[in-house]
Amino acid sequence: MVASELIKAAVPEQRKPASMQSLPGFRDFLPDDCARRNYIFARWREVARRYGFVEWEGPPLEATELYKKKSGAEIVEQLFNFTDKGEREVALRPELTPTLARVVAAHEREFKKPLKWFSIGQFFRYEKQQRGRLREHFQLNCDIIGENDLAADIELVALSIDLLRAFGLTEKDFVVRISDREFWTDFFREKNVSAERWDDLLQAIDKSAREPHEKTAQRLGDLADPVFGTLKSGGKSAKLEQLVNGLRARGLADFVAVDVGIVRGLAYYTGTVFEVFDRAGKFRAIAGGGRYDNLISQLSDGAVSLPALGFAMGDVVLSELINEIPRAREGMQKAVANAGKIDIYVVIAKEERRADALAQIQQLRDRGYRVDYALTSTKVARQFQAAEDLGARVAVLYGDEWPQVKTKDMSNGEQQLISQENLTTHIESKLH
Amino acid sequence: MVASELIKAAVPEQRKPASMQSLPGFRDFLPDDCARRNYIFARWREVARRYGFVEWEGPPLEATELYKKKSGAEIVEQLFNFTDKGEREVALRPELTPTLARVVAAHEREFKKPLKWFSIGQFFRYEKQQRGRLREHFQLNCDIIGENDLAADIELVALSIDLLRAFGLTEKDFVVRISDREFWTDFFREKNVSAERWDDLLQAIDKSAREPHEKTAQRLGDLADPVFGTLKSGGKSAKLEQLVNGLRARGLADFVAVDVGIVRGLAYYTGTVFEVFDRAGKFRAIAGGGRYDNLISQLSDGAVSLPALGFAMGDVVLSELINEIPRAREGMQKAVANAGKIDIYVVIAKEERRADALAQIQQLRDRGYRVDYALTSTKVARQFQAAEDLGARVAVLYGDEWPQVKTKDMSNGEQQLISQENLTTHIESKLH
Repeated sequence: MVASELIKAAVPEQRKPASMQSLPGFRDFLPDDCARRNYIFARWREVARRYGFVEWEGPPLEATELYKKKSGAEIVEQLFNFTDKGEREVALRPELTPTLARVVAAHEREFKKPLKWFSIGQFFRYEKQQRGRLREHFQLNCDIIGENDLAADIELVALSIDLLRAFGLTEKDFVVRISDREFWTDFFREKNVSAERWDDLLQAIDKSAREPHEKTAQRLGDLADPVFGTLKSGGKSAKLEQLVNGLRARGLADFVAVDVGIVRGLAYYTGTVFEVFDRAGKFRAIAGGGRYDNLISQLSDGAVSLPALGFAMGDVVLSELINEIPRAREGMQKAVANAGKIDIYVVIAKEERRADALAQIQQLRDRGYRVDYALTSTKVARQFQAAEDLGARVAVLYGDEWPQVKTKDMSNGEQQLISQENLTTHIESKLH
Repeated sequence: MVASELIKAAVPEQRKPASMQSLPGFRDFLPDDCARRNYIFARWREVARRYGFVEWEGPPLEATELYKKKSGAEIVEQLFNFTDKGEREVALRPELTPTLARVVAAHEREFKKPLKWFSIGQFFRYEKQQRGRLREHFQLNCDIIGENDLAADIELVALSIDLLRAFGLTEKDFVVRISDREFWTDFFREKNVSAERWDDLLQAIDKSAREPHEKTAQRLGDLADPVFGTLKSGGKSAKLEQLVNGLRARGLADFVAVDVGIVRGLAYYTGTVFEVFDRAGKFRAIAGGGRYDNLISQLSDGAVSLPALGFAMGDVVLSELINEIPRAREGMQKAVANAGKIDIYVVIAKEERRADALAQIQQLRDRGYRVDYALTSTKVARQFQAAEDLGARVAVLYGDEWPQVKTKDMSNGEQQLISQENLTTHIESKLH
């Protein structure tokens, strides 16, 4: 390290000019971060497709109106919204469901029901900056549109479980807590609670695990005792039993627990709701979702009415959990290590051979191989070092042996002299 | 079609409630649109990796300051910018290069040079709405950081060519027009033009192919005659000749043409610049880029100085060109048709067998197969129709034959009776 580099290295991160930092709460994905992100996306895509889900995507910016009143107070407070140059009230999307309802309402007649759609994209919120709280994250959304039957709820919960299993996580690592808003609306009806209070009561139940007992008691008022009693005893629900049995038929019963304390914050849920947590209880919810049978009708002013359900799984909490569980962490590290690897490194030992080497590099790349080389004249030892650093499986040396070239198997050091015209065939047999 | 559907079908798109539309200039990607987009992304990723490029990504929102003055007047006028709730001036990114320069300036010491980085993301602009002009698009960005040698310029242009060849496009379909800003700065120096005028003159030359001759002449002033003369005769440049020769060594010379009329609109370019056009001249540029050797230094207040070059390729013009060329269009259509296909459809002919079928479905999905089935009791003929619609290669029927199941090869209709316990093995041999 030369002196100037030492001085630079001593400048702490915070003292870098503001122009060198991203906005607060926004991440830069350097190659390893991006490989970790891509590993998660690839697993998500693969498992969603195993379930016959097809991918779609909405825009990152929507009319603010789309979220107002439909999603509940909390999400609107945290909207990353602004007025655009055309005086439109717009928002960086906080969630996908309203967009899905909008798109399905506009296009549903083009598709057979039920739709099984998934989407991977970035979502935003604007809240007070706290340590480690981001303003953006990526989410997988999976939704089933046009099916009333509980079989769809079971299919969706099974998918949420298999998505996590694909990362090497087991029933020892996470649990899906399943509940049903109708359990509570039936409960309210039975207790003659007027319908206007239901939303507030559901919010209070939703927050009961996170807020002080007294605060929840106050919000529940006269219903505090029966609600707390029910939360404690667990509550009985034929529908939830059936749901668990459906998962048992697939061998997934150990991944779920009925928990009527789960209500979900978003206002639009109508039936089954569920949240996925790490067993150790260290993190926020890994995923959450439920039925929103009225949202499409509401958004289309009654033009289209379709039952629907879905869930979202974020990249941030999932990454934290993967890092926590050695089996899962190793799987991700392996994928990240492989992401940047190349197949072949071409060592140019004699500059006179550079044009020949480049012609060969072009041929190999045309066949789909990942090939790298030194752009300028470089010591041979350094080129071999680069071959190793980049994880090349074969190095090909262009030098004095011309019109033969030397190949080196990077795994065992074995070298071979090959005539230039046979090189491609030789490499194909080696790398397949 | 029933009467109510006919009435709905007669409602033109524009009369749908505003809540059912995306914002002007923003696209919804229905499953087929998304499959086309994913096809483009997959080709981009694959070819960039063949060249040893690694993926990274920046945030979609940046401080407006990052773009001001660095990128030139046009891009700043079209910025999709606003003031956030924390009184920050922010912008939805119009391009990636300033983010790259920011990230590299902050992290360059963590990486060996040259960096070869690519990124795929969405970009935004706010301009007067015109027919077919979008406010968002996706771009592939490929950059090489830390290499002065022309070999890097050649590598980058070769990559831009191979990216398009991967879509089935040939030298008959597109051409890379290569130029060099230094050709013009040398020209100005030779004519004793003061350096303050250079930017304006470069802008005038950049626009000369699109603007009326008189307007360009006026902007060029006393230099109109020599500049027009040079544009007409083509200009001689040893560097550009060397660049073309480097591509010739790879067999790519037919894809390029020297054209000193190419200057690029962005202010930060310093050397080689190039743009890719369809040969028929029907579309805007498919891709464009060049050297920006001073940008990283500018953005880091001189803390980090690294030569750099890169280009961006957008999804919109590329899609138009692919649609125009039958060979390329067919390749895309095939990929789109395959994207939604499943491997196995499980037909449940007897509801008593549903639990058995679900256990089997879970097993097959665990092995990575794409498996679908009817969520609720459905006529057998309709289930087989669904198997066909979804492109299943095998259907498995659960019915009276239990504990045997019937498999049907969907390609030739061949049926077989298999005992349930041998099914997975049987399917693995069939589908591999």
